[in-house]
Amino acid sequence: MLDQRNGKPHERLAQLLAPEMDAVNALIRDRMASEHAPRIPEVTAYLVEAGGKRLRPLLTLAAAKLCGYDGPYHVHLASTVEFIHTATLLHDDVVDESLMRRGRKTANLLWDNKSSVLVGDYLFARSFQLMTETGNLRVLRILSNAAATIAEGEVLQLTAAQDLSTTEAIYLQVVRGKTAALFSAATQVGGVIADRPEPEVQALFDYGDALGIAFQIVDDLLDYWGGDATGKNIGDDFRERKLTLPLIKAHAKADAEERAFWTRVIEKSDQQEGDLDHALALLNKHGALEETRQEALAWAAKAKAAMQSLPQSELRDLLIDLNDYVVARVS
Amino acid sequence: MLDQRNGKPHERLAQLLAPEMDAVNALIRDRMASEHAPRIPEVTAYLVEAGGKRLRPLLTLAAAKLCGYDGPYHVHLASTVEFIHTATLLHDDVVDESLMRRGRKTANLLWDNKSSVLVGDYLFARSFQLMTETGNLRVLRILSNAAATIAEGEVLQLTAAQDLSTTEAIYLQVVRGKTAALFSAATQVGGVIADRPEPEVQALFDYGDALGIAFQIVDDLLDYWGGDATGKNIGDDFRERKLTLPLIKAHAKADAEERAFWTRVIEKSDQQEGDLDHALALLNKHGALEETRQEALAWAAKAKAAMQSLPQSELRDLLIDLNDYVVARVS
Repeated sequence: MLDQRNGKPHERLAQLLAPEMDAVNALIRDRMASEHAPRIPEVTAYLVEAGGKRLRPLLTLAAAKLCGYDGPYHVHLASTVEFIHTATLLHDDVVDESLMRRGRKTANLLWDNKSSVLVGDYLFARSFQLMTETGNLRVLRILSNAAATIAEGEVLQLTAAQDLSTTEAIYLQVVRGKTAALFSAATQVGGVIADRPEPEVQALFDYGDALGIAFQIVDDLLDYWGGDATGKNIGDDFRERKLTLPLIKAHAKADAEERAFWTRVIEKSDQQEGDLDHALALLNKHGALEETRQEALAWAAKAKAAMQSLPQSELRDLLIDLNDYVVARVS
Repeated sequence: MLDQRNGKPHERLAQLLAPEMDAVNALIRDRMASEHAPRIPEVTAYLVEAGGKRLRPLLTLAAAKLCGYDGPYHVHLASTVEFIHTATLLHDDVVDESLMRRGRKTANLLWDNKSSVLVGDYLFARSFQLMTETGNLRVLRILSNAAATIAEGEVLQLTAAQDLSTTEAIYLQVVRGKTAALFSAATQVGGVIADRPEPEVQALFDYGDALGIAFQIVDDLLDYWGGDATGKNIGDDFRERKLTLPLIKAHAKADAEERAFWTRVIEKSDQQEGDLDHALALLNKHGALEETRQEALAWAAKAKAAMQSLPQSELRDLLIDLNDYVVARVS
């Protein structure tokens, strides 16, 4: 149940973990510095201080704390996770040729693609330095595996784009790569660094995995559903011809005439006035938006169930509530 | 002394380390695979099998072997070093907007910039997985530090380009980043994995550092000096307005009229017919090419001296000879 007493779950998480997040922010500021190349902290600060929710480092801090960890390295791991996230944002914006992110100009627009590529590389390297400082080899394996899965998911998304034969299984693979891999690594390392028994570590992984998938499905759904409040423009994915879950579902149920429409607008890139409206009508006709919404809710329920297997605590319950918040935008 | 009996030093190194290099090639092929994204091995194979000299992995194998290492992990480390190198090549070609490398079309031209960025990220992540498998935390520190230094050097090069106030000290910093950091890490980890005493590890680092600097200075010199044999077009750096050592030295000795010339062609990007010839005349007039050559020779001598502090062996002497080979192109 969504407890509204003290604000939204991620805000309450941030309140509860404020001292740890201060330490994370200090470490990030320290490590984004560069003695020789001032362009690096310029670009990094622009992104890091853009006012994101810091959901990923909060997940790591919360997981470590609810596991009773009392060492110093959850701060390194949370900073690692945020650096990996920031590096992927920089590279994503180059790959997607994006001009805006979170309502501000992207770094590739303000500086150039070159800076975004190279500063991203620097942050990846910094993230590996940070995780190495923990001295925990299992944590290193988990996070370097996650980094590989993220890049693999991005390449898969690139080659699957504009391809109407993309299946729901491939979509799930892409989503695990681009979003869920870092969520699940973020929560799992919290349990590993606290040296918790394997079932708890697995539950933390399952929680992050399912939460990340729910998060991304909601994001993709809002691209056809959202209003002004979401800060997204309806139809961006349609215009970029991305094969997201709503479109995959509608295409699977399409008759011959509808298939010809999808082939024209997605594979042949021939989009005309009124095509987005027609696409939305087809998504509704086949119940693709509602089915997508149900899948997001099912993943959120799965995340909750995984977390419920851990001992009760205020943090645990907040992490459970976080799922309601993530899917609230489509509830 | 350059021993010509059995070919060039790097060829003799490759002969001597053929079984280990076979293992490296097998590991690289194994790890560049991707279950889900066939684009990844396509792009990687194109680069890895482009017929480079594999100098960096050979350095790691040679260092480990001359230190008497008899475990399995020098193969992982050599593969790590080659993956980091390949990833930086992919990203460099995007940043430099290159069309050709080693006489072939670049990956960003054959596929696209997106694939080059994302496959590069994948190879970075794979390199961190590989080094993590060694379980040696000092090796992880050295290689993640090297990755950060490489990216920092690339950013520094980007911001120093077209800037005539670039000093020789900044140039050296860039060269350490873009080239020497990976050479020195490649040799140093060979000693670390073999658990050699600190003075030997330091000598291996010093060797790689100086060899890498000599290598890059020679490369930059050949951009104004080389002929067809080098496979480089004379004047590429001039046209890209890169501040390399010959230009920095000539600019430092320029009179007012010459400074106006450099400002026009480098900072204002106003290059006309005959400007490259005039630039070459100025480089010769001030002895900038000869001075640059002397610096390359001095760094090569430094590398030899560092290696000479290690116990004599065939591999050690080959690594010493390698310096003659590197500077032979300008001798």
